[in-house]
Amino acid sequence: MKNTFQNESDEMESGGKLWAGRFGDQRSIDPVMERFNSSISYDKRLCYVDILGSKAYATALFKAGLLDQVECADICHGLATIEDEWRSETFRINPSDEDVHSANERRLKELIGSAGGKLHTGRSRNDQVATDLRLWLRQEIDQSLDGFLVQIIQVLIERAQDEMDILLPGYTHLQRAQPIRWSHYLCSYAWSLWSDWQRLMQLRDRVNVMPLGSGALAGNPFPIDRHYLSDLMGFDSITPNSLLGVSDRDFVVEFLSWASILSSHLSRLAEDLIIYSTKEFNFVTIADAYSTGSSLMPQKRNPDGLELIRAKAGRIFGQMAGFSMVLKGLPSAYNKDLQEDKEALFDVVDNLFCTLQVAAGILSTLKVNAEKTLGALSSDMLATDLAYHLVPFRDAHATVGKIVAMAENQHKDIAALTLEDLQSISI
Amino acid sequence: MKNTFQNESDEMESGGKLWAGRFGDQRSIDPVMERFNSSISYDKRLCYVDILGSKAYATALFKAGLLDQVECADICHGLATIEDEWRSETFRINPSDEDVHSANERRLKELIGSAGGKLHTGRSRNDQVATDLRLWLRQEIDQSLDGFLVQIIQVLIERAQDEMDILLPGYTHLQRAQPIRWSHYLCSYAWSLWSDWQRLMQLRDRVNVMPLGSGALAGNPFPIDRHYLSDLMGFDSITPNSLLGVSDRDFVVEFLSWASILSSHLSRLAEDLIIYSTKEFNFVTIADAYSTGSSLMPQKRNPDGLELIRAKAGRIFGQMAGFSMVLKGLPSAYNKDLQEDKEALFDVVDNLFCTLQVAAGILSTLKVNAEKTLGALSSDMLATDLAYHLVPFRDAHATVGKIVAMAENQHKDIAALTLEDLQSISI
Amino acid sequence: MKNTFQNESDEMESGGKLWAGRFGDQRSIDPVMERFNSSISYDKRLCYVDILGSKAYATALFKAGLLDQVECADICHGLATIEDEWRSETFRINPSDEDVHSANERRLKELIGSAGGKLHTGRSRNDQVATDLRLWLRQEIDQSLDGFLVQIIQVLIERAQDEMDILLPGYTHLQRAQPIRWSHYLCSYAWSLWSDWQRLMQLRDRVNVMPLGSGALAGNPFPIDRHYLSDLMGFDSITPNSLLGVSDRDFVVEFLSWASILSSHLSRLAEDLIIYSTKEFNFVTIADAYSTGSSLMPQKRNPDGLELIRAKAGRIFGQMAGFSMVLKGLPSAYNKDLQEDKEALFDVVDNLFCTLQVAAGILSTLKVNAEKTLGALSSDMLATDLAYHLVPFRDAHATVGKIVAMAENQHKDIAALTLEDLQSISI
Amino acid sequence: MKNTFQNESDEMESGGKLWAGRFGDQRSIDPVMERFNSSISYDKRLCYVDILGSKAYATALFKAGLLDQVECADICHGLATIEDEWRSETFRINPSDEDVHSANERRLKELIGSAGGKLHTGRSRNDQVATDLRLWLRQEIDQSLDGFLVQIIQVLIERAQDEMDILLPGYTHLQRAQPIRWSHYLCSYAWSLWSDWQRLMQLRDRVNVMPLGSGALAGNPFPIDRHYLSDLMGFDSITPNSLLGVSDRDFVVEFLSWASILSSHLSRLAEDLIIYSTKEFNFVTIADAYSTGSSLMPQKRNPDGLELIRAKAGRIFGQMAGFSMVLKGLPSAYNKDLQEDKEALFDVVDNLFCTLQVAAGILSTLKVNAEKTLGALSSDMLATDLAYHLVPFRDAHATVGKIVAMAENQHKDIAALTLEDLQSISI
Repeated sequence: MKNTFQNESDEMESGGKLWAGRFGDQRSIDPVMERFNSSISYDKRLCYVDILGSKAYATALFKAGLLDQVECADICHGLATIEDEWRSETFRINPSDEDVHSANERRLKELIGSAGGKLHTGRSRNDQVATDLRLWLRQEIDQSLDGFLVQIIQVLIERAQDEMDILLPGYTHLQRAQPIRWSHYLCSYAWSLWSDWQRLMQLRDRVNVMPLGSGALAGNPFPIDRHYLSDLMGFDSITPNSLLGVSDRDFVVEFLSWASILSSHLSRLAEDLIIYSTKEFNFVTIADAYSTGSSLMPQKRNPDGLELIRAKAGRIFGQMAGFSMVLKGLPSAYNKDLQEDKEALFDVVDNLFCTLQVAAGILSTLKVNAEKTLGALSSDMLATDLAYHLVPFRDAHATVGKIVAMAENQHKDIAALTLEDLQSISI
Repeated sequence: MKNTFQNESDEMESGGKLWAGRFGDQRSIDPVMERFNSSISYDKRLCYVDILGSKAYATALFKAGLLDQVECADICHGLATIEDEWRSETFRINPSDEDVHSANERRLKELIGSAGGKLHTGRSRNDQVATDLRLWLRQEIDQSLDGFLVQIIQVLIERAQDEMDILLPGYTHLQRAQPIRWSHYLCSYAWSLWSDWQRLMQLRDRVNVMPLGSGALAGNPFPIDRHYLSDLMGFDSITPNSLLGVSDRDFVVEFLSWASILSSHLSRLAEDLIIYSTKEFNFVTIADAYSTGSSLMPQKRNPDGLELIRAKAGRIFGQMAGFSMVLKGLPSAYNKDLQEDKEALFDVVDNLFCTLQVAAGILSTLKVNAEKTLGALSSDMLATDLAYHLVPFRDAHATVGKIVAMAENQHKDIAALTLEDLQSISI
Repeated sequence: MKNTFQNESDEMESGGKLWAGRFGDQRSIDPVMERFNSSISYDKRLCYVDILGSKAYATALFKAGLLDQVECADICHGLATIEDEWRSETFRINPSDEDVHSANERRLKELIGSAGGKLHTGRSRNDQVATDLRLWLRQEIDQSLDGFLVQIIQVLIERAQDEMDILLPGYTHLQRAQPIRWSHYLCSYAWSLWSDWQRLMQLRDRVNVMPLGSGALAGNPFPIDRHYLSDLMGFDSITPNSLLGVSDRDFVVEFLSWASILSSHLSRLAEDLIIYSTKEFNFVTIADAYSTGSSLMPQKRNPDGLELIRAKAGRIFGQMAGFSMVLKGLPSAYNKDLQEDKEALFDVVDNLFCTLQVAAGILSTLKVNAEKTLGALSSDMLATDLAYHLVPFRDAHATVGKIVAMAENQHKDIAALTLEDLQSISI
Repeated sequence: MKNTFQNESDEMESGGKLWAGRFGDQRSIDPVMERFNSSISYDKRLCYVDILGSKAYATALFKAGLLDQVECADICHGLATIEDEWRSETFRINPSDEDVHSANERRLKELIGSAGGKLHTGRSRNDQVATDLRLWLRQEIDQSLDGFLVQIIQVLIERAQDEMDILLPGYTHLQRAQPIRWSHYLCSYAWSLWSDWQRLMQLRDRVNVMPLGSGALAGNPFPIDRHYLSDLMGFDSITPNSLLGVSDRDFVVEFLSWASILSSHLSRLAEDLIIYSTKEFNFVTIADAYSTGSSLMPQKRNPDGLELIRAKAGRIFGQMAGFSMVLKGLPSAYNKDLQEDKEALFDVVDNLFCTLQVAAGILSTLKVNAEKTLGALSSDMLATDLAYHLVPFRDAHATVGKIVAMAENQHKDIAALTLEDLQSISI
């Protein structure tokens, strides 16, 4: 069970003084601290990009004359073996591996001996971690998020094309306002998501920048060709300042902010559809795959998928908010606080994957009850159009207001008012 | 790897129309939705409290005549077996178990047959979940949080008593202000944490209220004695309204807000100690157990433990922020959105456990460099006291300001100013 | 217009080097900094509590022998004059008054001469500000918030008593679930708000603690009787640690968190009523006073009051979130960052005042359309009760599911199914 | 005093039933609701862009044949008069003016009679408000923010060029790591802010899109040439969907998120400089203009400007968080909740103005104490470089660790170790 840190409370009951006592004076190991500090339980997801980065770095070291051809080949071969171990789930994590980077390094030395140590010439954990995380996020964007987003937009547009003749009330303040097309409604979200896609492409440019070569903070003293290294990993450019390079997490915050805006759009769509699928509205029927029954009430069809989409906007916002607070007031360059970047990012990416796919699934399978939506178009919704036939508009508005009130008082539809009725209202 | 939802993007490449096409018309299963909906990967932590609640409910059903003695005994025996399975890690989760409650229910029926179904008479998933989560949180408070908090307070007080004679500069705006005792400093945090403890005890009263008997929302139609049931589980009281009972997550938000305030206190303490442990201040030395070296710079001793404590204030706040947003504008009674309560709560409790214990460890093992702290007391810090010998104070303040400036201009300590110097300043 | 800081961009266009150039070397005044630093535009709201605190402090100085009777009387008389000036809006704020405390002090010296300076013997701006803000918040709780909250609860209970016979569908997942009473619904919110009231009373105890006597951070060196001083201002107790006393803003964060939870409750109520007042539900009609028309659509009645209540949950949360971030990682004792406490607090109190009163107004004037709510009770909502007549429940649930499906397929109400229909379903 | 809503609690004391009683049955006016609903106290800042938008709209109506030349001229002339009234502060706001748009409209009718009403043909409050806010934000970006940001970057670069020879310790984890140049440090922030500037330019494109012509939600039925209208106001493009056009506040959230990231950068810079300006570090001296003294401690120089900059990161984040929550789960199209956009936006822009200018002022006037920063470079900071002379690095690291430990044990500088000492460590 994730993050379950065992209760150390038995320590508390052993009596005696706490400070300089039970905790020992300057004791060298605290198992809770070990767990607190360790990130391998979650950063092992970076195993492949870590290997990718190491291969590239070995190649650059070879180019710089810091590794000979045999060493470089040994390292790359060793790394390929490790990659296979991860893929086949045979990689064994040692208790002393505090993160995926040290696990891969330890394993490499086991496989190829001390030559493995040379791989770290001029590279620090700081620039390695930053590089890996950028590689990982770029990959998730390119291989999944981009496509998921395009998929929903396609679903929306395809439905809009096919169902252009379905009419329904447009709402403002959740009150019926004016008749609109169902396709107009669908496209409003397609445009919203298109704008998310545009933002994603722009931020991808800022993700895809290579910090490797920044060292711990003051740069890499060896003649590594950073542009060559960057090309090897498919980066667009390199970070211009090493102090910033190791501690810049803008690409994480910007991504989380982007995800929060996107998920907010989906929460609004979900809210609409939840309301439209009530018995009272009955405009749409959610497919069984995205609804669930009730353990107590057999007649129910609950829109669980939509509710979860709505909820994820909160969760994703929360991850962004949390990591934003982590960064506030942090001193320059690397601080351990930055370790919080990964769980926030992973959680958001995972949840977005589901959210986007389930949203696409719901949108592609829901059924519109076109008779119901048409029936909801009461004639008073044409009041605006009625008003537009009278000039100037602002006065017409008041007159039409009287007509609407008269119809309401007589419990009639506006269309059922008589000419006399209308004449009785002085325009 | 937690929450890793596999990429379903291959669906996207199969051509043809998306809507009503590849997703199928009203298809009945979407594997992504199944994962999205399922909570067992994390709510299995509730397995024991779920069993506790079920035993109590069976007993109450027996008291109400809805189970006979044999049925009740069978159920309780079956539940005990399930509990053993969880403890021995032999409980097998089926793919169709969407949450721990249905897993336990399914297993019970396997063990004792259809009598297991009777356990759910009048109980809904809604009131069961709410009950379990309250039981779980009460347990974490009672068995761990309460004690961890008391432990840090004790460490602070014990050190304060033992090190009362250590003096250091008190800072405001991070500028030396007035001399204070180290014990005074430590106690300022003890009091802060005491106030957290007081708040915890008050919110515990609101956690320890039983919603069971609320049904899905409209109450339990059977003559269950809720007070009896509440006593069986050690609740202090019962929820007064069934609609609220199933959807009230105030106890979660209040706890998360409490945790955010507490962790903010610890972040301020951590910040102080990080600054005090710089080479430049050198007031304290963090024990090796809570520091780490650098992969590139052998001379370094980084206060990782403190940095993580500082960072957790962000993370914990983020969980609170996220779940607060989930609740905003949610319709009454149960909505699936509430499922987000658990991961937020678990994450915060887990992180608090570590944070509190590591903070206690650091505080009990750090070394104060008393000579350094004493040496930092420059005589200009007595300016306030100097001013207090002159009346009225506001004018004295200006005079002493001149004295301080004179000393600064002459590059002298105030104590080194001559009588003539002082006389030259007209008071 | 609040917080409108004039554009200083013309400085930018004057050519030459920016640093050590146009900004001057160590220039002593920057008008933007003056505005940035000044708080009087908003903290003038504290004028009365500041005077209250000063009167009490003068009295305590007199008791300690630090003021003679004449001085004390002069000071108190002067302060009374200043209070009159604020009440009659004749108090003139000088450009050099950076906050309300210095404005009152400056004015006092103008009125009574240098004796005014003695008032500050042993008191710092830090403990004065903290005292004033606590006095102010206590006053707002006692004179307004407490009553506003009780008022809404009363409205809910009174309506519940009078309208106990109105039935409506209870919803979960916004799907009709089981029939409930309107009074049951109203009371669910009354209980929620009652719990807010209980929390408010508990936090009030933590607000009503006197920090005065803490000095700048290291305490007050004069023999001030803090308990006497506390009694004079109606505080319940005194802060136990001066370092904490000047920088503790828990009472602000706790209040803001409380307000966020309360406003979240009201946002859920608002959401329900917005949905219930749609044409499609038509369960309630919002009074004209809390609705508005549309500039374009004369037929509309928009529930603006409810929408604003819903929105305020976001705004109030935001203020809490912002100030929580301000506090994260702040060094001990007073830092200027704490100045952010006041605008956040004032904004939340102001918005709560409106939110609570408008909510009470809406609840006390809305009209329930009892025929509509009754009509919405379809017979399938009794499925649960039907199921309860069959044992064991879990099997019954499946059977009733079949009955509901049959009715749906035949486009009939469950009640309209024939005996044969029912017999065809093997139980 | 902003947002001060008077206490209506006297209503509460008048006895009798609350609901349907004191509040009246369906009473038509509630003064608290009027204040709650009104936005003119803050949206009057939009007066000029509102007039700009109205002039453009009148011109487009004329082009469409919906106004004749005289009407158009009258309207434009009337609007110019209103603009003069705002500039000269002679515009009188009526109690019935609920927002700046209705105030301008009311005044126009007073000035030119009923022809003023024609201005609103086909335009709704919804598209008008969205247009105005976009115009306003574009103006603030172009006239101020862009320049302020460029100004700080310039200050940083100019200082970096002039002070390239100043060395100081580079820190990670706030522990001395490796020597760096002061210019390297300054440039790390210049690059960070440059990336903020890049983001600002990209989001400006999404701000500068015209929603006018969307009507209330369903578009404008008259033959208005939207591209012409857009050109008249300097928009880059027009919104493609009317439903989205009236309710899309992405440009606000994106701007607020941007501001939060920017202010987080500045909070980190401020934190560094606050620490560097302590007595203990003494690396920099903040100019008097940005420091303040203490009311109690004449010797102090507090970095108030920097502390406020640090704090604003919290406040600005809070506004973003608040408005993000407002949007979560909101139904499509316009809802009154969106009214919260303006105060959040105004507050952030105002605070950014100050923050950016004060930051530029501080950076351009602070004094670096180059001897101090140089003196802080202890020889152990060259440990990394020492290690780099030994291959492979990972082993060297361990060896150098031993050298550092030996120096520490002997209380010597590394440089003072003897050859024998070094030889005693087996490499």
